[in-house]
Amino acid sequence: MKALLLRNSILYIKDYARPVPNPDEVLIKVLMAGICNTDLALKNGYMDFQGILGHEFVGIVEECGSNKGEKWIGKRVVGEINCVCGKCEYCLNGLERHCSNRTVLGILNRDGAFAKYLTLPIRNLHIVPDNVSDEEAVFTEPLAAALEILEQIHIMPNTKVVVLGDGKLGLLVAQVLAKTGCELLLVGKHISKLKIATQWGLHTNLASLLEESFYADIVVDCTGSRRGFAIARSLVHPRGTIIIKSTFKDLVQMDLSSLVVDEITLIGSRCGPFAPALTFLQQKQIFIKELITQIYPLENILDAFHKAEMSSSLKILVKI
Amino acid sequence: MKALLLRNSILYIKDYARPVPNPDEVLIKVLMAGICNTDLALKNGYMDFQGILGHEFVGIVEECGSNKGEKWIGKRVVGEINCVCGKCEYCLNGLERHCSNRTVLGILNRDGAFAKYLTLPIRNLHIVPDNVSDEEAVFTEPLAAALEILEQIHIMPNTKVVVLGDGKLGLLVAQVLAKTGCELLLVGKHISKLKIATQWGLHTNLASLLEESFYADIVVDCTGSRRGFAIARSLVHPRGTIIIKSTFKDLVQMDLSSLVVDEITLIGSRCGPFAPALTFLQQKQIFIKELITQIYPLENILDAFHKAEMSSSLKILVKI
Repeated sequence: MKALLLRNSILYIKDYARPVPNPDEVLIKVLMAGICNTDLALKNGYMDFQGILGHEFVGIVEECGSNKGEKWIGKRVVGEINCVCGKCEYCLNGLERHCSNRTVLGILNRDGAFAKYLTLPIRNLHIVPDNVSDEEAVFTEPLAAALEILEQIHIMPNTKVVVLGDGKLGLLVAQVLAKTGCELLLVGKHISKLKIATQWGLHTNLASLLEESFYADIVVDCTGSRRGFAIARSLVHPRGTIIIKSTFKDLVQMDLSSLVVDEITLIGSRCGPFAPALTFLQQKQIFIKELITQIYPLENILDAFHKAEMSSSLKILVKI
Repeated sequence: MKALLLRNSILYIKDYARPVPNPDEVLIKVLMAGICNTDLALKNGYMDFQGILGHEFVGIVEECGSNKGEKWIGKRVVGEINCVCGKCEYCLNGLERHCSNRTVLGILNRDGAFAKYLTLPIRNLHIVPDNVSDEEAVFTEPLAAALEILEQIHIMPNTKVVVLGDGKLGLLVAQVLAKTGCELLLVGKHISKLKIATQWGLHTNLASLLEESFYADIVVDCTGSRRGFAIARSLVHPRGTIIIKSTFKDLVQMDLSSLVVDEITLIGSRCGPFAPALTFLQQKQIFIKELITQIYPLENILDAFHKAEMSSSLKILVKI
C-alpha cells in the first residue's frame, strides 16, 4: 500500500506492506485524512517520530484481528488516537489518554493514517453518523481536542476568554468555547481567517491592533508557536489562566517568578473526548466547510504538506 | 532611626528619618522581623527593589495619621504586606492582593520592616492574640502564604502531595497541607531539617533517595531555586499539578510541549490570608519553635543575613 513515511525530518511516499491487525484490533481502509499542525511539528523533529504520519482520519473497517471485531466490519469509523494498555494506573482511573504504555497513531510508536490502511484497537472506534460527511468526520479528532478544554476548566457565561491563534485549531476552539456563552475574543494575525470567524458571529481582533490594557480571565494559546506563550502571558490578568494547546520542538525561556507574583495558572491541554465531538458534528453545531482549504489525493500528499505549511492555509485534507 | 537599606544588591545599616503615616495609615514600632528567602532574592536583584527590606514583622501601633486610626494605638499587630488602592478592578473583585496600583512592604515601592518604625495602611492591620508570642507572630505572613495554596486548589484526603524543599517555607507548607488529611511527603536535601518534620509526625524523604517511579498528584515547589521546577516536573504524574512558590531572578528553560502532552497544571502562588494564619497560631496548631535558628539584634542584621544565607539555617529573626 502507498503511505507517507517520515524519516529524519524527511517525508517520502513509500510502498508499504499492508498492516495486520492483532486480535484486539481492526484493519481500517482510510477514506480521508487531515494534516494537523502536530504533523508539521513532527516533521520538524518534535517527538522524534519515525514512521507513517497522520492521526486525523475517517475510514471503513475492512477486517478484524479476531471475531471480537466482527460487528465493526463495513462500518464507517473515526478512531481515538491513543492506544492504551487498559491495565496501568491511568487506564484504571479514567485517564486512558495518559496511559503509561500508550502508542499514539502517527505520533508515538504507531504508524498513522496517511496510508491506504491502518490498524487500531476496537476500543478506539466510534461510528460516524450517516449525516456526517467524510470531510466533516476528519475533524472529530481536533474538535475533541477543543472540547478537552471544557473537561479541564469551568468556563462561565461571564468569563472573558481570548483564543489566541486564528489557525484551524483556534477556529475550532473559538467555536466550542463560545457555546458556553462566555465573552470570547479570537485574536490572530490573518485578516482572511479572522473574517471567517466574524462571519460565524464571533468577535475577533488583529493581534497588532489589540489594546495594551486588554486583559482576559482565560487565554487559550492555539498559535502552535513558541512565541504564543509570551503573547498569552501579556493578555491574561493576575489570577488568570493560560491554556496551552501548542506543541513544538523548542524550549521556551520563562519567567516563573512572574507567574508566582501574578498567581497565573497554566494548563497543558491535549486530546479530548470523541463522543461529544461526533454529537456536535451530527447536530451541525460546528462550522467545518470554511475550515477546509484544499483536498489532495494521496499521490500528491507532498504538495499537500507544502500547502499546509503556508500561513494562508487552514485545513488540508488528503483523499486516500 | 536605624534601618537596613538595600541599594544595588548591597545591604547597609543606615540612619533614616522616621516615616510619617498618611491619614489612612499608622506608624508601627517594630518589635521583631523575620528574614525570608524573598529578602535574599531581592538582595540578588529580584524585582530590582531599592529601599528598606523586610516584610515579616510584629509591632506596636504608636501613632496614626488621622483619628481614623486612633483605636489601633497601643495594639500589637501584624500587617498584610500588599498596600492597595481599593478602587481598581482587582480590589473591587476581592483580589486586593493583586491590586494594579499596589506597593508591597519591603518588596515593591515601599520601605519595609528591618527598621525601628514602619508605616502601613489601617486596613492592613490584624491584632495579634495575646497567647501568640512575638516570635510566633512573625510567622503570620509566611503561614498565610502557605494557606494561600488551599485557596487555590482543593486538596483531598486521598490526594498524594509532595512538598519539595525542606526550608522554612517548605516546613510551614507541609504542616498546613497535612491538615487536609492528604498523603503528604516532604522531600528535601537536609537530613537535619527533614528530621524536624519527622518529629512532627510528617513523612519525609531525601531527594536523592526518592524512587524514580514516585509520582504525586500535586507537587509544591518551595525550593526557592530555579532547579526546583525540573525536580517538581519529574515528580508529578500526567494530569497532575505543580504549585510554584519559588521566586528568583533567573529565567527558566521550559519544555512547554511536555506540559501539553502530560496535561500538567502549573499554579503560581504568592501571599495568602492573614486571618486563618493567626487563628492557627492562636490555636497552637503549627509548630514554630523548631523553625527558628537564631535571633539577632538589629545592630547585627548584616550577620543575620549572612546566617540566613547558610543552607543549614531555617528562620533568622531580628529583634528590633
